[in-house]
Amino acid sequence: MLFFLVPVASIAALIFAIAKAAGIMKQPEGTDQMIKIAGNIRKGASAYLKRQYSGVALFFLVMLILLGVMAYGDNLGFLQTGLISDFVPFAFLTGGFFSGLSGFFGMKIATHANSRTANACRTSLNKGLKVAFSAGSVMGFTVVGLGLLDISIWYLLLKYAFGLGLQETTACMITFGMGASSMALFARVGGGIFTKAADVGADLVGKVEAGIPEDDPRNPAVIADNVGDNVGDVAGMGADLYESYVGSIISSMALAVSAFMSVPDLQMGGVVLPLIIAVVGVLLSMIGTVLVRTGEKTEQKQLLKALRRGTNFSAIVIAIAAFFLVWFLLGWQNIGFYFSILSGLLAGVLIGFYTEYATSDSYKPTKKLADTSKTGPATIIIGGIALGMNSVFVPVVVIGVAVLAAFTFGGGFFSAIPGVPAASSGLYGIALAAVGMLSTLGITLATDAYGPVADNAGGIAEMAGLEAEVRERTDALDSLGNTTAATGKGFAIGSAALTALALIAAYTDRIKELIASANNLDFSTQLEKVEEIFDKTFNLSVMNPTVLVGLFIGAMLPFIFAAFTMNSVGRAAQAIVVEVRRQFKEITGLMEGTAEADYARCVTLCTKSAQKEMIIPSLLAIIAPVATGLLLGVEGVVGLLAGATATGFLLAIFMANAGGAWDNAKKYIEAGNLGGKGGSNHKAAVVGDTVGDPFKDTSGPSINILIKLLSMVSIVFAGLVLAFNAIDLVKDFYIK
Amino acid sequence: MLFFLVPVASIAALIFAIAKAAGIMKQPEGTDQMIKIAGNIRKGASAYLKRQYSGVALFFLVMLILLGVMAYGDNLGFLQTGLISDFVPFAFLTGGFFSGLSGFFGMKIATHANSRTANACRTSLNKGLKVAFSAGSVMGFTVVGLGLLDISIWYLLLKYAFGLGLQETTACMITFGMGASSMALFARVGGGIFTKAADVGADLVGKVEAGIPEDDPRNPAVIADNVGDNVGDVAGMGADLYESYVGSIISSMALAVSAFMSVPDLQMGGVVLPLIIAVVGVLLSMIGTVLVRTGEKTEQKQLLKALRRGTNFSAIVIAIAAFFLVWFLLGWQNIGFYFSILSGLLAGVLIGFYTEYATSDSYKPTKKLADTSKTGPATIIIGGIALGMNSVFVPVVVIGVAVLAAFTFGGGFFSAIPGVPAASSGLYGIALAAVGMLSTLGITLATDAYGPVADNAGGIAEMAGLEAEVRERTDALDSLGNTTAATGKGFAIGSAALTALALIAAYTDRIKELIASANNLDFSTQLEKVEEIFDKTFNLSVMNPTVLVGLFIGAMLPFIFAAFTMNSVGRAAQAIVVEVRRQFKEITGLMEGTAEADYARCVTLCTKSAQKEMIIPSLLAIIAPVATGLLLGVEGVVGLLAGATATGFLLAIFMANAGGAWDNAKKYIEAGNLGGKGGSNHKAAVVGDTVGDPFKDTSGPSINILIKLLSMVSIVFAGLVLAFNAIDLVKDFYIK
Repeated sequence: MLFFLVPVASIAALIFAIAKAAGIMKQPEGTDQMIKIAGNIRKGASAYLKRQYSGVALFFLVMLILLGVMAYGDNLGFLQTGLISDFVPFAFLTGGFFSGLSGFFGMKIATHANSRTANACRTSLNKGLKVAFSAGSVMGFTVVGLGLLDISIWYLLLKYAFGLGLQETTACMITFGMGASSMALFARVGGGIFTKAADVGADLVGKVEAGIPEDDPRNPAVIADNVGDNVGDVAGMGADLYESYVGSIISSMALAVSAFMSVPDLQMGGVVLPLIIAVVGVLLSMIGTVLVRTGEKTEQKQLLKALRRGTNFSAIVIAIAAFFLVWFLLGWQNIGFYFSILSGLLAGVLIGFYTEYATSDSYKPTKKLADTSKTGPATIIIGGIALGMNSVFVPVVVIGVAVLAAFTFGGGFFSAIPGVPAASSGLYGIALAAVGMLSTLGITLATDAYGPVADNAGGIAEMAGLEAEVRERTDALDSLGNTTAATGKGFAIGSAALTALALIAAYTDRIKELIASANNLDFSTQLEKVEEIFDKTFNLSVMNPTVLVGLFIGAMLPFIFAAFTMNSVGRAAQAIVVEVRRQFKEITGLMEGTAEADYARCVTLCTKSAQKEMIIPSLLAIIAPVATGLLLGVEGVVGLLAGATATGFLLAIFMANAGGAWDNAKKYIEAGNLGGKGGSNHKAAVVGDTVGDPFKDTSGPSINILIKLLSMVSIVFAGLVLAFNAIDLVKDFYIK
Repeated sequence: MLFFLVPVASIAALIFAIAKAAGIMKQPEGTDQMIKIAGNIRKGASAYLKRQYSGVALFFLVMLILLGVMAYGDNLGFLQTGLISDFVPFAFLTGGFFSGLSGFFGMKIATHANSRTANACRTSLNKGLKVAFSAGSVMGFTVVGLGLLDISIWYLLLKYAFGLGLQETTACMITFGMGASSMALFARVGGGIFTKAADVGADLVGKVEAGIPEDDPRNPAVIADNVGDNVGDVAGMGADLYESYVGSIISSMALAVSAFMSVPDLQMGGVVLPLIIAVVGVLLSMIGTVLVRTGEKTEQKQLLKALRRGTNFSAIVIAIAAFFLVWFLLGWQNIGFYFSILSGLLAGVLIGFYTEYATSDSYKPTKKLADTSKTGPATIIIGGIALGMNSVFVPVVVIGVAVLAAFTFGGGFFSAIPGVPAASSGLYGIALAAVGMLSTLGITLATDAYGPVADNAGGIAEMAGLEAEVRERTDALDSLGNTTAATGKGFAIGSAALTALALIAAYTDRIKELIASANNLDFSTQLEKVEEIFDKTFNLSVMNPTVLVGLFIGAMLPFIFAAFTMNSVGRAAQAIVVEVRRQFKEITGLMEGTAEADYARCVTLCTKSAQKEMIIPSLLAIIAPVATGLLLGVEGVVGLLAGATATGFLLAIFMANAGGAWDNAKKYIEAGNLGGKGGSNHKAAVVGDTVGDPFKDTSGPSINILIKLLSMVSIVFAGLVLAFNAIDLVKDFYIK
């Protein structure tokens, strides 16, 4: 019955978001020009999302038909695809729908809050923070609210309305995770291409060739650039974190079911635990959000303190509350799982701190990187790549320790459960660690998502010709956002790695279920026999060449994916460059400020490019694991998932940190160091920043989604791969 | 008795090399100024190697003492390190010694051949090719000659003089592989840092700031730059390929022993097979080398044809000869192993072709990359990184297919051996594939190593103020070398991946041996029992978190290693920049050509920097697997090795191809395309080339050595890790 707290918390989060949104809408929007500019941005962003959603709708339709045929085929017996249940196609659909909705609401409020933030900054920095942070909270609570809503609906529907067993229910719910991840990948990739193409294109012609400042209204790509912040950094991030949040919860639910198969009481507790942690997390995030308030002083340090007060409060209290939740739901003898959760939380915090150290210009690495600009663009590029590659060390060690700790505590250390294999409950511990990391997403996302709003506000202030101090204030908000965002990134990357590992375990569990049903064994009572068949059939050892080849293929995927998305940004930016150059040449009076640029054309161009370019990388995530499965079977898929998780984790950190450090090295020089803005060092730093743009805002964050989507796709198509794959045919042929 | 062909072939190769060297020395050295310049280069290179070898000697001394203590401790019983035998310290030493010697001889002849090549180019292109290619052959045959010599000496010594068993003999021989790899890593990293620091430093001040052409004698770093070609591209490459050659042979010998444990006849055949393939390869390489001759026409295409005639002849004939060798040594029923060898050979050829496609300016990818220079340095950097990341796809697929084919053919497909587990003989098949790839190293290395000689000849021609057509001819030779080198790179990278996989298998075999001796079991007759204990003790499944964490750590190592080496190049180049700037400022008359630069200071500076900077990355390869083993035990080490092999393979290809493509995009523009030399596109391309320098000549090729050295270190320290590691202590504590 505890479960019913979930829809309640979900509704509460959504109401909280609506209330915050209403508060923002009450604020004045500013001067006529601000209203006009904001209207243009809003229009562009809506047009983009509309087009993106119609493109993605086509993809979802195709998948729906494909999954439908598989379900139909299984039922009528003309196909053998072992689909989890007939609800799979619909679950897939709602996952995508809610993920898209999270992005949509986030973007809606962000495009209404940008001019209001700029306007509030005309009064004081503090007022600006309040509006921007409110917009961030709307996004944060929309994501967690919709996430818990989707989970509630499906859980209640499958379990109570359609009477599915717990195991089938949780397995089926992974399908809506797959829908959410697919949507998130499209949103992140498409939005990331849009925003960086507009940014790079605007900079290359505007700043470098025409010599006009950033956000100058004479630049034809300036509206597109501001639209990009909303569709990439807001809508993309919303869909992305919806996927992470839901993914961590459903994977731990699924692992609880298989770990505690033989202990029904514990099983229910294990399934409910991640949900209740999320519920408490929502409550604490709300309190934390309310705590973010300052006096009327405008000191930046105090603002940071105010933000940190909110996030620290939620993190510390959830760390304490989880202890009692585990005690209550799993019993004192299983208190080890609490330490699994705690190790996840700590790992997230540590990676966040380290991310800040590696990329903030307050610390040595980025300062040193800025120094390399003295010898030109080549050395700052080499330095940034080296910095990014070096920065994987600490996160790998932290995640490594967290994984082993979460597994050990879950798998027998203070949590010995008779009849439960240590390995299964240990893997559940790893999944719980990810849940711990993301439990207070409501508030961490709020501190993350207000940055792009402030960024946009700055653009509007510039374009509307507001006083210089307004821009200064929005810049202060923006840079504050960069600091708090580092922590958010730590949680996002760390949880992605842990959830991906949990999902690999969920994949092998799914294979075991299929074995059980193929051999007419009862999964809960005859588990040992199932395990025996599994071990005899599959050799998951690293020494098995099939696993190794899968590992190579998996390790390759993030590289290919990054290459595709970077090339996409390059091509799309090239198109913008040509268009902006054309407008400067053909529209007379544009440079003098007497004629207006054709902003809409640049927006349309970015939209079209992003839509076209996002298709191939996104399909890669669907096709690669299925194709590998059909060729190399289950062993190859497990290798692929492990390889993709390891390299994906590394590449995501490398790209995010290299990009972040280049960005901040440029800002450090712009702040007056090493010759300041306009000097040759600054020029070199701008090259670094431009290279870093697709690193940190397109390729890097998408990889986090990729590694989870690969596992979910593998789980959904597990039956198909098991029924048919080439390597088994070869083996059948030569092993008599 | 067939074994005695090995020392015979070894001596023949060395005599061939000496004869070729004598032929080169007979050629005239050119004008007085050429003699003087060449003398300076030679002096600088010798000084560097002397310093490098004394630095490395210290490392070898420390390792010798460490291994000595371990051997002594095992014998007296006060330590339990399970060292393979008392010969380990000495074997380690000779491996390093011969590897260093290969580099030394290669460099000696290269620094005598450079001015002679330049002088020959004054007559004709064809004559120049002959001298340069002879120098390359000296290096090629020295490497294979010394490699087979070292193998012969140790094999005969251990087996016949000291009466060790076959198993102990081959295991002990892996130690000299470790010595060779350590030396190679030092040589590649140190030489790579030297050459790129000098190159980047000379370019940044000379070309960019002072505006003087490349190889201009007024540039104080110009001699250091030319010394760099010799110590990096020649001495480094020699040590590197010595390591690859020896590594592939000894790993397949070791795997033959364990695979055919129960069939003594086959066991001997399996051990001898890789050696005899190498013997035939030496013979064919000699014939191939002799075939490289042209008429007096100077058409570049015909020269390429002449070179290809030599390599193609050797490759095709070895592909045929191997069939009969397998038939003769392993019998008709095991002819499957021939197809293992063939799949390795084919994979090497395919990766070589693809490398050329991806990086040569005759094809689309590099042409497109050159196009991205139009929008400045940032876009060509993004484009090159994307090109490099994209270029991993084909090699991964090719190696994946080769691994599965070699394993399948070796493990039962046309090679079913009663009593031999398919997995063991399949892994031997993978090792043979690497041997196949490297069998004709004598000639492939010759076509690879003559490039730097031609490069140096060009530098001398420039500095000595020879006629413009001489420089044109040396440039033609140099660019020809780039084309043939692509094939060489394919073999080097492909064989590294296959050998690394074979060495992982050798590692688990070593653990099994240790288990056998600890349980007083006879490894050859009670293999099944040993396997049983192994399977019960270790869970090598990818689903085991210890393996997974090891995988993450291993995957991380190439990233960290690349970061270290790139930073080293950056720091060392910075020091050169400061020194060159100082000389331009302080030496009056330098720019006017009336005073001479202090070349020696730049050489000394590069030497010191390279020596200092090579220590940490090289130690990483020794310390990381031992430390991981002491913490995570055998399971962690296996994960580490698999992860490092997969990511290392990917990063090595990515970095080599990105660097190669940037280099050729720059050359493409210099050839008059896209605005030609000096234009803004060219400037952007120079930035790309500078970033690519440490990619392709320092970090990339060193990673190939790294992944093998990690396995060899693990094998040598296997006993220590088995006797003591933290994770077993934890397990003992909580698993009652």
